[in-house]
Amino acid sequence: MSRDPWFQTGSTGLLTDLYEITMAACYFEQRMSQPATFSLFVRKLPQNRSFLLAAGLEEALDYLENLRFGPQAIDYLRSTGHFKEPFLKHLAELRFSGEVVAVAEGTPIFPDEPLLEVTAPIMEAQLAETYLMNAIQLGTLIASKAARIRFAARDKTLMDFASRRAQGRDAALKVARSSFIGGCNATSNVLAGMEYGIPVQGTLAHSFVQSFQEEIEAFRAFARVFPDDAVLLIDTYDTLEGARRAVKVGKEMARQGAKLRGVRLDSGDMVHLAKEVRRILDDGGLTDAKILASGSLDEYRIEDALAAGAPIDGFGVGSHLGVSSDAPVLDIVYKLVEYNHRPVLKLSQDKQTLAGRKQIFRRYAASGRMEEDVLALREEKLDGLQALLTPVMKGGKRLAEPPALPAIQQHAAESLSKLPSSLRALRGTNPYLVRRSEAIRELQSKLVEEHGGMVSR
Amino acid sequence: MSRDPWFQTGSTGLLTDLYEITMAACYFEQRMSQPATFSLFVRKLPQNRSFLLAAGLEEALDYLENLRFGPQAIDYLRSTGHFKEPFLKHLAELRFSGEVVAVAEGTPIFPDEPLLEVTAPIMEAQLAETYLMNAIQLGTLIASKAARIRFAARDKTLMDFASRRAQGRDAALKVARSSFIGGCNATSNVLAGMEYGIPVQGTLAHSFVQSFQEEIEAFRAFARVFPDDAVLLIDTYDTLEGARRAVKVGKEMARQGAKLRGVRLDSGDMVHLAKEVRRILDDGGLTDAKILASGSLDEYRIEDALAAGAPIDGFGVGSHLGVSSDAPVLDIVYKLVEYNHRPVLKLSQDKQTLAGRKQIFRRYAASGRMEEDVLALREEKLDGLQALLTPVMKGGKRLAEPPALPAIQQHAAESLSKLPSSLRALRGTNPYLVRRSEAIRELQSKLVEEHGGMVSR
Repeated sequence: MSRDPWFQTGSTGLLTDLYEITMAACYFEQRMSQPATFSLFVRKLPQNRSFLLAAGLEEALDYLENLRFGPQAIDYLRSTGHFKEPFLKHLAELRFSGEVVAVAEGTPIFPDEPLLEVTAPIMEAQLAETYLMNAIQLGTLIASKAARIRFAARDKTLMDFASRRAQGRDAALKVARSSFIGGCNATSNVLAGMEYGIPVQGTLAHSFVQSFQEEIEAFRAFARVFPDDAVLLIDTYDTLEGARRAVKVGKEMARQGAKLRGVRLDSGDMVHLAKEVRRILDDGGLTDAKILASGSLDEYRIEDALAAGAPIDGFGVGSHLGVSSDAPVLDIVYKLVEYNHRPVLKLSQDKQTLAGRKQIFRRYAASGRMEEDVLALREEKLDGLQALLTPVMKGGKRLAEPPALPAIQQHAAESLSKLPSSLRALRGTNPYLVRRSEAIRELQSKLVEEHGGMVSR
Repeated sequence: MSRDPWFQTGSTGLLTDLYEITMAACYFEQRMSQPATFSLFVRKLPQNRSFLLAAGLEEALDYLENLRFGPQAIDYLRSTGHFKEPFLKHLAELRFSGEVVAVAEGTPIFPDEPLLEVTAPIMEAQLAETYLMNAIQLGTLIASKAARIRFAARDKTLMDFASRRAQGRDAALKVARSSFIGGCNATSNVLAGMEYGIPVQGTLAHSFVQSFQEEIEAFRAFARVFPDDAVLLIDTYDTLEGARRAVKVGKEMARQGAKLRGVRLDSGDMVHLAKEVRRILDDGGLTDAKILASGSLDEYRIEDALAAGAPIDGFGVGSHLGVSSDAPVLDIVYKLVEYNHRPVLKLSQDKQTLAGRKQIFRRYAASGRMEEDVLALREEKLDGLQALLTPVMKGGKRLAEPPALPAIQQHAAESLSKLPSSLRALRGTNPYLVRRSEAIRELQSKLVEEHGGMVSR
């Protein structure tokens, strides 16, 4: 059972677009209960992305296990006047009974590659569209952004400070989880610590310093309460003066047998100040004290700061990580690819979809580097290649316990280390070969022809 | 009591940054329980914004009324090893007991103007920082985006279709609410319909069409089940062919005494296709059938389409509305401005804050148009001007029932109609005068001087 209390509300089925329910009503009236397969994938990469890092699957599976239309939900649907009683009775008893194949969280993926495919009686698979897209988009968006920030930050400590400017409280939690998958070491979000076991970290705020008459008194008070874990924010009034006061307090702490853990910079010229502050700390004998930086950071500013030699030991990253600010939305879709064992496609201009249930095969070089992917039909076998889509749910039940979060993070780190180095570039979009198998291309040509011979893209 | 089940979990206090709790521990050890006032405001407007539309307040107040550290939360905090028992006992009993003044939801606001100010024993006001910022940012971000889209869409129907690509399920709900405040007529999100009473609307998806052997059979099936409310999606294979089939089905419906409500376009050249489809519908006698458009729409594309004469009756707006894609984050902050009746400020480079508890006074011209705002100290009286910050909570309790959502929407529409017309421009940032009162400037100069004479910005 999920720990997420929302899944127990009995209204999970309503977190969907109305048209999913009106279509479900039609399927019900038409007695269309044959299996449908929907494929969830990203059509195009956003700017400055050469790959995406899959995440959000565990929430998607939680949702499917808990998809319900409880009495309050049914009463509401009745009140809209759109639906007849036999259909409402059917909804009240509906459970997701289908199967899911999916790419493991923490795996790099590319356009047109399904992050998951759902096969279920069409009504069930259709109703799930909105939530599945929502959960997988947010997870993947943020894990991908975090991976980029991890590339920029090299081996420095990375902390998620995004909760206050994430898009909603649910996003605050999910951002903490996906950031950890993408390579953050810790989060400031305490609830994420409790729910996901992510290490929580924090320092202190300007308000704390301001609430004392003198900055140094604020430092002393904090150091007294947290003698082993004090990181002092030194830019409330004057950063270099703040650093000198931190040294004074650090020395006082040392005399008590304690140790100042570090200082934090949150404004001004990060490179210049970090160098000056490092000198002040070292001159004061606090060579072990760390320098953390925060304040509108992203992968670009972190890369620049480290390239310029800023002696920064850790970065707290907020808004830009929390909303993936340079690419806040994915062109993610959930498309019917097979119904009643008949592969289907759509031909909408610039939005054509590939018919049929898929498999992704990944080829690695002898060095371990990823070489190319082959997008194939589900039943194809390509020897020596790794199949990325594996069964995770059958009969509406998970096939295994969710992996532990550190194991997902570890899988992500290993997978990212196998990316071709050109794909680690922070700017621009570099290509990675995703071939289409012979079988997938033949099927597509045949179906396009049947629909009037439009040219396959 | 809030209808939101999450507020009953007893872990609401943990949806915060760790440093709020470590600072609280210090305040507790130092016996610092004097009243503090924090001011929540936006420092700078994002690109292409000349105003922001306040929203998110009701969620913020729900949170304050339900701020709790239940037994599970306390156990978790204990397990971190950071906190002593007397402090944990204090937290377990903590309730928010303070007062809040705030700008009404649906009111245009500008940089440096507080959306709300909290006055409470410093620990309580500090702990609330993260959640208050999160709730007000998301609400204000989306209401502001929706207002812009409403400007572009003139008097056409506007529907929120953002749920699938909003940043998390909580955002999906809150986006529906804030979009409605900003000027949307309806949402596709069914749960938002139940929770907030927003009208829900929807059409059908490509998958529905694909699940039938023939497009026209899909149209007929849908029209049979929803004879009064069918909007047919016509671009699955060929838009103009789809329009002709819609006409055929519309005529069949008419013979049964039903009426086709309309068609939806989701791809291709919206202006060209809308004109062609209108002609096909009119030629077929379906002059009452509406044309709805969707697919990566935002205020810019809607403005251009209407300027080009596209005969579109309604727009479904998704991702760009749902994440405010061109400005997905606000430079929103929550700053201590007074502690123990002593006004305070911070001087951090480029991030200086104004000391003291505030009031916003708004001056209107005889025509009703907004003329200028004056940012003043709370106790100032400026005759003939409208004071925007009003008390909404005392002793930790709301002073009034939340206003009905349609009343908030109405207030927003009226307030937006009073904006100077230059602020309605979709591109660029046009200025609006926010003066500072004599008293606020004198206080700031005095405090800056006391801290070493840095120049006030």
